[in-house]
Amino acid sequence: MNRFGNLFQVMVYGESHQKAIGVVVDGVPAGIQFDYDLIKSDLDKRRPGAVGTTPRIEKDEFEVTSGIFNGYTTGSPIHIMIENKDVQSKDYSNLVYHPRPGHADFVAYKKYHGFNDYRGGGRFSGRVTAALVAAGSIAKMFLPFKFTHQLIQIGTLTDLSKMDEYLEKIGNDKDSVGGIVEITVKDIPVGLGEPFFQKIESVLGSMLFSIPAVKGVAFGVGFDGVNMLGSEFNDVILDDTGKTKTNNSGGISGGITNGNDLVIKVFVKPTSSIRKPQETFNRKSKETQTLEIQGRHDVAIVRRVGIVLENAVAIGLADLYLINKAYE
Amino acid sequence: MNRFGNLFQVMVYGESHQKAIGVVVDGVPAGIQFDYDLIKSDLDKRRPGAVGTTPRIEKDEFEVTSGIFNGYTTGSPIHIMIENKDVQSKDYSNLVYHPRPGHADFVAYKKYHGFNDYRGGGRFSGRVTAALVAAGSIAKMFLPFKFTHQLIQIGTLTDLSKMDEYLEKIGNDKDSVGGIVEITVKDIPVGLGEPFFQKIESVLGSMLFSIPAVKGVAFGVGFDGVNMLGSEFNDVILDDTGKTKTNNSGGISGGITNGNDLVIKVFVKPTSSIRKPQETFNRKSKETQTLEIQGRHDVAIVRRVGIVLENAVAIGLADLYLINKAYE
Amino acid sequence: MNRFGNLFQVMVYGESHQKAIGVVVDGVPAGIQFDYDLIKSDLDKRRPGAVGTTPRIEKDEFEVTSGIFNGYTTGSPIHIMIENKDVQSKDYSNLVYHPRPGHADFVAYKKYHGFNDYRGGGRFSGRVTAALVAAGSIAKMFLPFKFTHQLIQIGTLTDLSKMDEYLEKIGNDKDSVGGIVEITVKDIPVGLGEPFFQKIESVLGSMLFSIPAVKGVAFGVGFDGVNMLGSEFNDVILDDTGKTKTNNSGGISGGITNGNDLVIKVFVKPTSSIRKPQETFNRKSKETQTLEIQGRHDVAIVRRVGIVLENAVAIGLADLYLINKAYE
Amino acid sequence: MNRFGNLFQVMVYGESHQKAIGVVVDGVPAGIQFDYDLIKSDLDKRRPGAVGTTPRIEKDEFEVTSGIFNGYTTGSPIHIMIENKDVQSKDYSNLVYHPRPGHADFVAYKKYHGFNDYRGGGRFSGRVTAALVAAGSIAKMFLPFKFTHQLIQIGTLTDLSKMDEYLEKIGNDKDSVGGIVEITVKDIPVGLGEPFFQKIESVLGSMLFSIPAVKGVAFGVGFDGVNMLGSEFNDVILDDTGKTKTNNSGGISGGITNGNDLVIKVFVKPTSSIRKPQETFNRKSKETQTLEIQGRHDVAIVRRVGIVLENAVAIGLADLYLINKAYE
Repeated sequence: MNRFGNLFQVMVYGESHQKAIGVVVDGVPAGIQFDYDLIKSDLDKRRPGAVGTTPRIEKDEFEVTSGIFNGYTTGSPIHIMIENKDVQSKDYSNLVYHPRPGHADFVAYKKYHGFNDYRGGGRFSGRVTAALVAAGSIAKMFLPFKFTHQLIQIGTLTDLSKMDEYLEKIGNDKDSVGGIVEITVKDIPVGLGEPFFQKIESVLGSMLFSIPAVKGVAFGVGFDGVNMLGSEFNDVILDDTGKTKTNNSGGISGGITNGNDLVIKVFVKPTSSIRKPQETFNRKSKETQTLEIQGRHDVAIVRRVGIVLENAVAIGLADLYLINKAYE
Repeated sequence: MNRFGNLFQVMVYGESHQKAIGVVVDGVPAGIQFDYDLIKSDLDKRRPGAVGTTPRIEKDEFEVTSGIFNGYTTGSPIHIMIENKDVQSKDYSNLVYHPRPGHADFVAYKKYHGFNDYRGGGRFSGRVTAALVAAGSIAKMFLPFKFTHQLIQIGTLTDLSKMDEYLEKIGNDKDSVGGIVEITVKDIPVGLGEPFFQKIESVLGSMLFSIPAVKGVAFGVGFDGVNMLGSEFNDVILDDTGKTKTNNSGGISGGITNGNDLVIKVFVKPTSSIRKPQETFNRKSKETQTLEIQGRHDVAIVRRVGIVLENAVAIGLADLYLINKAYE
Repeated sequence: MNRFGNLFQVMVYGESHQKAIGVVVDGVPAGIQFDYDLIKSDLDKRRPGAVGTTPRIEKDEFEVTSGIFNGYTTGSPIHIMIENKDVQSKDYSNLVYHPRPGHADFVAYKKYHGFNDYRGGGRFSGRVTAALVAAGSIAKMFLPFKFTHQLIQIGTLTDLSKMDEYLEKIGNDKDSVGGIVEITVKDIPVGLGEPFFQKIESVLGSMLFSIPAVKGVAFGVGFDGVNMLGSEFNDVILDDTGKTKTNNSGGISGGITNGNDLVIKVFVKPTSSIRKPQETFNRKSKETQTLEIQGRHDVAIVRRVGIVLENAVAIGLADLYLINKAYE
Repeated sequence: MNRFGNLFQVMVYGESHQKAIGVVVDGVPAGIQFDYDLIKSDLDKRRPGAVGTTPRIEKDEFEVTSGIFNGYTTGSPIHIMIENKDVQSKDYSNLVYHPRPGHADFVAYKKYHGFNDYRGGGRFSGRVTAALVAAGSIAKMFLPFKFTHQLIQIGTLTDLSKMDEYLEKIGNDKDSVGGIVEITVKDIPVGLGEPFFQKIESVLGSMLFSIPAVKGVAFGVGFDGVNMLGSEFNDVILDDTGKTKTNNSGGISGGITNGNDLVIKVFVKPTSSIRKPQETFNRKSKETQTLEIQGRHDVAIVRRVGIVLENAVAIGLADLYLINKAYE
């Protein structure tokens, strides 16, 4: 269940506090110049450092153990491993009994009959997304599209010039906020996506919802489109390339790319781990008790998640791009 | 690409104006009492009739050709076929040259090198969702959950008591509107969903985005959660069943059901086919020209799509439910 | 579990005595001229008539309900349905208690908790392979390869000029025989097949073993190669097209086609249904009792199965052919 | 294409002379006691040492980087990595031009447009099967079946007491031989396997043909059954457990396990790499030239492959076992 894709296939593994996380990427065409720097710079974008981000700073040194020869992809699966180094071996075991609100602690215990690795969120940690970022970098090495992302709202703040100040205040209140990120893909041809269950929206929706804390995905104008009439919403076609006057549908018609920019909006919920005390159930005492979460956490994980979302989109498009090639 | 699922598998086929649409449903447990009436009543909910819905009224008589014996499922694939009967054989061929804004006409022509069946939208017609509804009814025959859906906004209207009047006005203006539907699933246990790529949100997001006109999917409070603090958003756990004080996360923690109601919000865009004239590109003349869409269309397809969304959710959950059973 | 393929996808449904069997074929390129006659002539090759074949003669009239427009494939799933017409409504219920040796009666009852449709073998009937034949015909419509098959042994008989006489004798003894069929594919390029789990042998082996009564699959010289030395077995390469001096490996190196003829040997076991009385367990009486199988059966099903095997190979190759196209 | 399975999923990566080979195993139930020793002892069985096996002796030290906590499986993917240590950095580049008969050198060059890692056979090396063995060991940790394998023929030799002497002679002749291995699985319940495309034979056939050098797979008596009459071949059922008098069908009826021992015969071709000079095409000179293969090779790889086949069977059965559990 940890794999994705028909041709461009990705399998991620790893838990927050075990030896390593990693990813196997299969279906990469042979002969692609392998860009180690792109992986490094993408991983760096995910690393904390800015105001509102966690003080747990992994170096994210990655190792490529297969699939590259003389600097080019061989056509064999590429395995990338990232060791977990900055692991603080404090005792997480109280979370088994006193599960954190908004976290997977409670459901993981039930689902895995008590055998899950609960340290640092285990399999449910955002840490695992580093592997996804690396897989997305590989997709970007052969896709002839341009990917960007930007934060468009953080908490109630839309004027993002005031972000540092805003997050500092939230952090001082021992609280957290979420945000909305917009991903844009340019230079994308007409025809990617497959009806019925592999529409662009289905494939990218599935990918994006895999990322921890994502609770909403919308294309083009998104939910705001509910206030528009059909005559306003419809994107009028202007020429034979498919270029449209507006782009309310986010570059997609009938689930297929229509030649305009792909535009995706993603809602990332407020970081679950807050330092503010919370009253929540304790499975041992069978009572509601105050929980104070220790550890190092992001005030606004949304500030770091942009590259994860962008690269997740790249993975989804890589699969659809290769499928489309089979039918050209 | 027209199939879904690991264990509960669904494959849909059909085009709007060919002989039939249908679905093969595989992985249904043997020994389930087959409820023909449920399929009939679910299909009826999708049929038009209300203000703002199309006058093309198919009877949706379905035929079950395999997988049922003595009134019970046999464990073999179930094939359901629905013939296309109320097909108006008017000439759709001008749409090949003069593609409708908001429709798949343009991309389908390009993607299928001109060989797609363009009549009535062909493969991209909402008609195909009747088959999906039938598959969802089968899922509901063995899932011990309660499914409901409700329209919560239509166009700018949130007081839905005024819906008929509102849609009549929109229809008179030869225009259309979209809406937001909320699906709720009750009595769902802790533990459905699989990290990483088969989280509840991923699987249901993928399913829901497969349905024509869906442009946004969100869970729990959805995008509105951006205005909340972590301390407000976090759902505090109250007891050992996992019951939470609030349900902002829509019954899901870490991608896994947490024992609370599953709550999903879906944005359905305004119907693309409007009778109002639109200026759009004509591939033959190489110029922008006025297009007047004939035919029978919904002013607000969102009014009929609720059961499709509900049953799509049932399909996704059926797969996760069976997967979960393998590990109990 | 009734589906096959990554790009060229096939889903078969149906039971021997229900309304219909059929197949949905997805991933067929758009713009292929649809050859109804090929399907008809392939289905005819599977039909009985010769000495040693069953007197149940279905007309195998098939109906194509979707995916074809103006005589060409549209790129949408193609659904082909074949109604079960010559069904003799005799009572099969004693087989539930007194299962036939060599048949699935016993295991089907256990696996499906008694809900399987046991009439005529139900899902396990060879009847279902008619749908597979039709799917294979579609594959052959766009694959630029030449497919043939031939019977090379039937029972102990290798001089097949004496086949009718031989089978008549076996039939008079109320017994049955199996055989070995060889399938050859010519004009196949270098490079089809994917390591590790989608080698030519894996994909075709999987397909061929899906066909009832197939108990052995081998490539090139097959099991006889055990008596050869490496220096005899190795196929020496002669030129830049990959042509080899011998073809002991059946046109495959490392799981990938090597440009020589693909050669596959398939062992089909003797027909299980024999008219000779057999002593076998009766679940009702809890004793071993004499079973006399009534009904219409093949003395040598192997005589009809060649086209099924050939077309199964075509389905497998179609998938690998399209996958390969994505990487050219 | 390097993955296998619906629930119990395996993805293998690695090339012979790169940093590491490995496997990600997903879908393992949580709470299984992890048996490092079983992996070690299974890997040891694959290692050379006996007469007729290669002098390249890897220690096969494996590292488990995820999925285990406190000695038990967590329900998350398990990643096992085996570093390539005993790599001899000699020059393999002549094989690009002068491809070895019976090897993938020629097809790999064509398929991967010259970018494949040709050193030591690269992706096509038998080396990769070490990862498969480890995955199979994991399957055996929770499957309640007993697995064994035995060599039943090597070259023309069936009296295996004379094996060492025989192989020494073949080795002195700079030649190689193949063989036949029989795998047996005991204590297997009725009901594993899924019609149509996931029959026991399909799933295990697919798995076994993935293993380098396997050119034939048969169940029960295998191809020899061609000489039997139906009345001889049919396995008569003796009691309510499904026990049969004979086991010609190898424990499988209709593609489903029938409660008797699963018996599988596998033909492994003679090792392709022989030290005897061979005349074969040289792509550079465009002429047939003598090739003398250097390096360290097995005279009879079949002597080591038994555990690989056995564990491959375990992987296939693990998937079918979990699928079956979902429907119990």
